[in-house]
Amino acid sequence: MKNPNIKVGIVGANGYAGAEVLRLIASHPAAELSIVTSRAHYGKRVCDVFPALPSPLVFSDMNDPLLKKCDAVFVALPQTAGATLVGDLIDAGVRVIDLSADYRFDDIELYEKTYNVTHPRPDLNALAVYGLCEVNRDKIRDARLVANPGCYVTSVLLPMLPLCKAGLAANIIADSKSGTSGAGRKSDEAYSFCAVDESFKAYGVFNHRHAPEMSEKLGVDILFTPHLLPIKRGILSTVYFDVTDADEALNALRSAYNNEPFVSYTDQLPEISAVAHTNRCLFSARFSGKRGIIISVIDNLLKGAAGQAVQNMNIMFGQDETAGLPLYAPI
Amino acid sequence: MKNPNIKVGIVGANGYAGAEVLRLIASHPAAELSIVTSRAHYGKRVCDVFPALPSPLVFSDMNDPLLKKCDAVFVALPQTAGATLVGDLIDAGVRVIDLSADYRFDDIELYEKTYNVTHPRPDLNALAVYGLCEVNRDKIRDARLVANPGCYVTSVLLPMLPLCKAGLAANIIADSKSGTSGAGRKSDEAYSFCAVDESFKAYGVFNHRHAPEMSEKLGVDILFTPHLLPIKRGILSTVYFDVTDADEALNALRSAYNNEPFVSYTDQLPEISAVAHTNRCLFSARFSGKRGIIISVIDNLLKGAAGQAVQNMNIMFGQDETAGLPLYAPI
Amino acid sequence: MKNPNIKVGIVGANGYAGAEVLRLIASHPAAELSIVTSRAHYGKRVCDVFPALPSPLVFSDMNDPLLKKCDAVFVALPQTAGATLVGDLIDAGVRVIDLSADYRFDDIELYEKTYNVTHPRPDLNALAVYGLCEVNRDKIRDARLVANPGCYVTSVLLPMLPLCKAGLAANIIADSKSGTSGAGRKSDEAYSFCAVDESFKAYGVFNHRHAPEMSEKLGVDILFTPHLLPIKRGILSTVYFDVTDADEALNALRSAYNNEPFVSYTDQLPEISAVAHTNRCLFSARFSGKRGIIISVIDNLLKGAAGQAVQNMNIMFGQDETAGLPLYAPI
Amino acid sequence: MKNPNIKVGIVGANGYAGAEVLRLIASHPAAELSIVTSRAHYGKRVCDVFPALPSPLVFSDMNDPLLKKCDAVFVALPQTAGATLVGDLIDAGVRVIDLSADYRFDDIELYEKTYNVTHPRPDLNALAVYGLCEVNRDKIRDARLVANPGCYVTSVLLPMLPLCKAGLAANIIADSKSGTSGAGRKSDEAYSFCAVDESFKAYGVFNHRHAPEMSEKLGVDILFTPHLLPIKRGILSTVYFDVTDADEALNALRSAYNNEPFVSYTDQLPEISAVAHTNRCLFSARFSGKRGIIISVIDNLLKGAAGQAVQNMNIMFGQDETAGLPLYAPI
Repeated sequence: MKNPNIKVGIVGANGYAGAEVLRLIASHPAAELSIVTSRAHYGKRVCDVFPALPSPLVFSDMNDPLLKKCDAVFVALPQTAGATLVGDLIDAGVRVIDLSADYRFDDIELYEKTYNVTHPRPDLNALAVYGLCEVNRDKIRDARLVANPGCYVTSVLLPMLPLCKAGLAANIIADSKSGTSGAGRKSDEAYSFCAVDESFKAYGVFNHRHAPEMSEKLGVDILFTPHLLPIKRGILSTVYFDVTDADEALNALRSAYNNEPFVSYTDQLPEISAVAHTNRCLFSARFSGKRGIIISVIDNLLKGAAGQAVQNMNIMFGQDETAGLPLYAPI
Repeated sequence: MKNPNIKVGIVGANGYAGAEVLRLIASHPAAELSIVTSRAHYGKRVCDVFPALPSPLVFSDMNDPLLKKCDAVFVALPQTAGATLVGDLIDAGVRVIDLSADYRFDDIELYEKTYNVTHPRPDLNALAVYGLCEVNRDKIRDARLVANPGCYVTSVLLPMLPLCKAGLAANIIADSKSGTSGAGRKSDEAYSFCAVDESFKAYGVFNHRHAPEMSEKLGVDILFTPHLLPIKRGILSTVYFDVTDADEALNALRSAYNNEPFVSYTDQLPEISAVAHTNRCLFSARFSGKRGIIISVIDNLLKGAAGQAVQNMNIMFGQDETAGLPLYAPI
Repeated sequence: MKNPNIKVGIVGANGYAGAEVLRLIASHPAAELSIVTSRAHYGKRVCDVFPALPSPLVFSDMNDPLLKKCDAVFVALPQTAGATLVGDLIDAGVRVIDLSADYRFDDIELYEKTYNVTHPRPDLNALAVYGLCEVNRDKIRDARLVANPGCYVTSVLLPMLPLCKAGLAANIIADSKSGTSGAGRKSDEAYSFCAVDESFKAYGVFNHRHAPEMSEKLGVDILFTPHLLPIKRGILSTVYFDVTDADEALNALRSAYNNEPFVSYTDQLPEISAVAHTNRCLFSARFSGKRGIIISVIDNLLKGAAGQAVQNMNIMFGQDETAGLPLYAPI
Repeated sequence: MKNPNIKVGIVGANGYAGAEVLRLIASHPAAELSIVTSRAHYGKRVCDVFPALPSPLVFSDMNDPLLKKCDAVFVALPQTAGATLVGDLIDAGVRVIDLSADYRFDDIELYEKTYNVTHPRPDLNALAVYGLCEVNRDKIRDARLVANPGCYVTSVLLPMLPLCKAGLAANIIADSKSGTSGAGRKSDEAYSFCAVDESFKAYGVFNHRHAPEMSEKLGVDILFTPHLLPIKRGILSTVYFDVTDADEALNALRSAYNNEPFVSYTDQLPEISAVAHTNRCLFSARFSGKRGIIISVIDNLLKGAAGQAVQNMNIMFGQDETAGLPLYAPI
């Protein structure tokens, strides 16, 4: 039925993003899982650890030589933890899609300051292509290393880049709200059901790590406030800005992603349920005088992480860009 | 046990706000329910319609003469539907707390334009006191008619009035998120469980009716965007503004409600669960250069509606202001 | 990319089950949507009515002649509403998968009594194959009319049929709990977010319409109680029974679906999240003396409706039975 | 306003049950908080640890001598952890309401086997009165030690005791579903939001610790299966049984709690939202031939824990039994 040609490895497959990559690859028409790794679950079968993922594969270690025999490896580890491995894989000729922030920044000092770390392999940074698919498609095609964008960042960049590139927006404030899976798999009372359910809160005010990533890519400083939604998946960003010319801005937004399967301008204000469990980004805009508001929605684990990562793989390996990626949202 | 002296009527007791007034009055130490009305449930016992409200009272009609024998009547009807009744009750010497927007505006033309109606009793508007308890306490004490503030409005005014009065804030944007009970009791697919659960959306962008109410009370134009949260109760407002002096602003916020039982500045960013099911408002501020952000939370049905209404009654009738009003939030 | 050979029509594509069929067919590797109908949305584009379903198709009427040119038509209409259309389609040589209860019963009088209707086309009943895929696969292969099983029924039959056929279980009680999508798309306060969220209730005690369907297929009377869960999708059935031989029963359960991709016995008690958004059924058993308990989970809209319907289509048209059907559950 | 005469201590006030006692006592008209203890939060102000609980009290240690000066102490500690303290308090003349299982069992060996512990103070067991208020009111009045019943147990005993005492029910199966707060305050991925939300599961099949408590109090063996609901609070128990005489059973159920403020038979099937945030138990019954089904609902943290504990205190100290306890459920 399936004609696999891309041999895939996943490092850190027990985190939410890694597990979603695993799920997508398992039903991808042109990819095959060769190896999945997890420190926590080493030696166990995927299906025994996660009944939701009926894969007979056994979790390996990230030092397993099989990784170097893959065509593509998704690295879904915490900041800096996978940076050296990424280098080794690239040296071995493997093409890497890194889901951490390690290779997202042009300015490596900004990265180090933002994450309060020392980059283990700054030399590789020049190789990395920022994996915002619709924007960097041409560079991604031949990239050896793709840095998959942050979830909040994707929700803001897709609608705002066309405006910022055209100099149409200033004084940008992004008020974003994310489902709880954005925090990762957690054993922490703050993310317990009773703490999150029927509540809502802001966090990281004036100091969230996605703000510098947004600002660098947009080329302007942006004020960004994230909030925690009592839902599993999805991000909605409400972006406020001063617009120089509302008609021109609307035209720019309408035309920017004209033939894109995953990114669309809509007249109706979009809601999270329209894109949850898909790889889509929907956005709409409203203007009043010199004020503009954009509402943008994505699934934080798909277009905001694993889905965009697989889309990057599709581009890198000459596949139909939509292969294995859900377009239609369930009820 | 209870020594009731205030005879209370509730008009429109089947809406969420009216039902919450009913619930609060049922356990209020100094008030007694005389009559509750509902067009939809006329002639039925409250406990038969609402198993959650074990009151043996029978729903009356809003023309029932018993209403005029009450000391206080809460009117919880849609815009304009209760405006004439309010006049009749006041003429009969009853003190009225109106939960609609009918008497909230100083500028009656702004009200009529905002709600797209003709005010049935504009003559009464001058009598009405805007029932933001902590701010207008002295006027409320002797008021014959109190206009209970809007829910979103309360969440924004409490923290922002001290700043606006002192001229410390400009360029205000309120990005607010409300639980679904804010939409009222609804038979509408858009508010069905499957439509709201695991989703989130903005609505009323640039044209929500609470924006003019906020702007009138703050004395400056405000940009306001409401969103629908998949929770039953609670509002969180994230308010962005340019601050002229951050230290002064912080002092103003810290001191504004110093001895208030229900309204408090907190150092921690507050979340909805800290105030849900209580009559409290908690807020906190963060500053960075000339930018300020305030996070403010209330329960939309209590401090944002029925709770503040009962607090107004307490003030009007010389009771302890906290009587019958929850301060501690449940888990 | 896709090599479509099955031309598909969907009648009643705006209900939850119909919309899920639409979603599955849209990404099915061997099927193509020819026509979708909806009385409510006639003449509108699917993507304009449902932003979650980016299909450019326009909703047709159920009398559209295009239906008769399809290879397979899914009929997802309320009881009796589609029964005549089903006959017309079959006469035209179209193979039909009916998601209503119209053709599920061997005993048509039991059907009429259960649903309190007169069957419009009792003559067709003999043609109908009960579409419980893993059990009736051979008959489904050549069926002209497949009656897709009820959602609750599927969750109970899959684990209990192996026991009942072997005479191992008696005194069966099925205590089932379903997500709210099981009630269908509703504009009804009883299914509003505020009514369902943070609550839970039983309904249809001793008189739910799925009990006769279960009892007929199991060949023994069963006591069935459904409950409404505050989640969108999923059913968990807790089935109590007297077991004649626990070891034999466990063997029967373990071996019944040995090589099935979608139905599995598990040692761990399964939970809804392991199968939500998939076409799987997981179940586990526990025994204590002569008492047995089975816990069984499915997604009510997939294995309990649209997913099983598409699985039936796959069988009928000689496709890989898993084509287009999700196996891995998302986070 | 408040005329306190009962000096109250709470040991283990940071658990959910303890925190709910704290909340109830804070607004109780005849009780005053003297001391609250928490090992985890020793030395911190309650309001700083829990913004939802604006109490200026500082968490003490459970060895604080102030505990012995209280009139009533609520002990909300894990099994055995408070058993010795309970003895010391009783020796000091303090009346104790223990929320653990330590003193619930008549048969101390059954307790030790069920909880797999050695009872630290078996000598005290004879003193303890089982605090099911409506049933043991007379003994509770003068008790020095009240053992507060388990949450699941309360939901089952209240409707089933009248039947079992009259020999009207046999072959009892209780299929119970509880909100997540029943698991306590947890830092455990299994209780994380993403694990619980949109899911549902059974646990403790054939071996939950509340089964022996139920069976002992009912005087017959009962089959009990608990499930985890994706809601914060509330239990619904669906109880199946063989009935000897349905009319007699219905009469027994209707009359058992005739003038009780908190416990009521209802004709409508009750749902959790009708009792959440209250101290009520509602139940209804349906019969078909020799089969009976009872649906019973409580709030697991109130009637199932803290509320019943305070009700016990009210009885013990001659207060109105409803003092400080919510009767009306919020929306």
